[in-house]
Amino acid sequence: MHASPLLPPTLADLRDAQARIAPFAHRTPVLTCAAIDARAGDGCRVFLKCENLQKVGAFKFRGACNAVFALPDTLARRGVVCHSSGNHAQALALAARLRGITAHIVMPRTAPAVKQAAVAAYGGRITLCEPTLQAREDTQARVIADTGATEIHPFNNPFVIAGQGTAALELLEDHPDLDAVIAPVGGGGLLSGTAIAATSLKPGIRVLGAEPALADDAARSITAGRPLPALPPRTIADGLLTGLSDLTFGIIRDRVASILTVPEDAIIDAMRFVYERAKIVIEPSAAVGFAALFAREPDLRGRKIGIIVCGGNVDLDRLPWQRPA
Amino acid sequence: MHASPLLPPTLADLRDAQARIAPFAHRTPVLTCAAIDARAGDGCRVFLKCENLQKVGAFKFRGACNAVFALPDTLARRGVVCHSSGNHAQALALAARLRGITAHIVMPRTAPAVKQAAVAAYGGRITLCEPTLQAREDTQARVIADTGATEIHPFNNPFVIAGQGTAALELLEDHPDLDAVIAPVGGGGLLSGTAIAATSLKPGIRVLGAEPALADDAARSITAGRPLPALPPRTIADGLLTGLSDLTFGIIRDRVASILTVPEDAIIDAMRFVYERAKIVIEPSAAVGFAALFAREPDLRGRKIGIIVCGGNVDLDRLPWQRPA
Repeated sequence: MHASPLLPPTLADLRDAQARIAPFAHRTPVLTCAAIDARAGDGCRVFLKCENLQKVGAFKFRGACNAVFALPDTLARRGVVCHSSGNHAQALALAARLRGITAHIVMPRTAPAVKQAAVAAYGGRITLCEPTLQAREDTQARVIADTGATEIHPFNNPFVIAGQGTAALELLEDHPDLDAVIAPVGGGGLLSGTAIAATSLKPGIRVLGAEPALADDAARSITAGRPLPALPPRTIADGLLTGLSDLTFGIIRDRVASILTVPEDAIIDAMRFVYERAKIVIEPSAAVGFAALFAREPDLRGRKIGIIVCGGNVDLDRLPWQRPA
Repeated sequence: MHASPLLPPTLADLRDAQARIAPFAHRTPVLTCAAIDARAGDGCRVFLKCENLQKVGAFKFRGACNAVFALPDTLARRGVVCHSSGNHAQALALAARLRGITAHIVMPRTAPAVKQAAVAAYGGRITLCEPTLQAREDTQARVIADTGATEIHPFNNPFVIAGQGTAALELLEDHPDLDAVIAPVGGGGLLSGTAIAATSLKPGIRVLGAEPALADDAARSITAGRPLPALPPRTIADGLLTGLSDLTFGIIRDRVASILTVPEDAIIDAMRFVYERAKIVIEPSAAVGFAALFAREPDLRGRKIGIIVCGGNVDLDRLPWQRPA
């Protein structure tokens, strides 16, 4: 017997997600900034959907919260699990705490202390393992065997994707006249949810992915016609290292107009510009979308463009444009 | 003949200001942050009125814009002038440009190049002078004699104060159930406007000023019963170095419950905390209010507290908690 393939969430699933997470998630503000408009050029107007101002500092809370609260009680009481050391781990820990259940977080023992502390602060139960994918998967399997916890994958999960899509849903409720929406792409959960929301609400809209040139596996996957594995981690945008899954690949292939790739120096430059002019703290992965915007793709000329500012979790002791101490 | 003393603006003046600046100023978002609530302690709920997200990155745009647009045409066409190297200079330059008139900005020749560039970028016409108060005043007087420009003082001006008060007006429109509002105090324009707005709309509300212990001239002025001169510039909160004027002193004496003073290390610590948890870029002067909040004054226990986040113009190459490169 084969496992049935995961189906993409629909607009109705996104609306369910929106209602489900409304008591817990921030409806984040949409900001505008004349300096960003000017830099996007040619009469562009840009609308920043600020998921850096979301709970746990990232859009990830939306998906984790939707997945956790969608679980039936019988499953939920046995807890949830993921292997992640990033924003999804914190998001899952907080969502589980809000539901009053346990989140088991499998992390490599090499994960920075600050990330372990953040997960612990949200009440996550950390299981450390060796820093290999195999060890992470084995450890997660053991947690599941021991506890009956449900895996909440960071993007290969229709409930997670539906949750991530609620950011674009809100953005388009606030600004229905957008011509395009840009979201960064790593594993593709945010971009998939964004694309489902935007193209369902407004069939003519252009949804664009943005990724570092040093992690351009999504762009190459679309060209290749199948999800290609992630590249070695060399980009500063450490939230975008993951490769697409079959599920996110299919959604992106069907609904995303194109994937824009940007060099590292443009990411760092855009990041500083956003701090300086828009006065918000963003992480490098969130700067990728701005770097793509500032590259002034001809199709975006004079458009109203939404941009999903994915998160703001960053090492404040040294920002990327600062020289080493 | 004596110059008649300046009269404090009324709530009606603030509402006029609100209507006057509405086409030009951002209605800034009010953010909440669970980590800030927790650190304020004891069931406090805190509402951040984000003037760092205002045009030019500071509340100063409100006052300058109101003063510039309130000028009759006959005066306006001869331009406006101030001596300032801070946020007011940028704010006045932008407000003047929006009205299509000239802003003359007198700056000491020692003002950082980045501040001169910012004023120039907003179209301000810079006149450099020696770095003394006398030289600044003399130079401004000469500009006025030469051009007929109207001085727009950064705080000793009822139109400016009325403009600054619109931030609190909006905050209380959005959250009418606040028990207290905290604003930083330098020259006192923001605190005066905030106090007029808050105590007029809601007589029982507590309005609190916050200032660095190293620049506690406002607190000492209230104790002394008269405006005392500013102290030597030793605090990191370089927006709060100015002393009160007779006008702002009187308003603050009559309407502000108390002035809280905070040490430098608490300012830096609060600043980092806001970046890390609220994900917004603030300047040291804006951190002063948070430092006062985090000191957990007994009267604020369990209250709903608004805080005016005054601005976000800061040197991003080295943030105060980072060690020297």
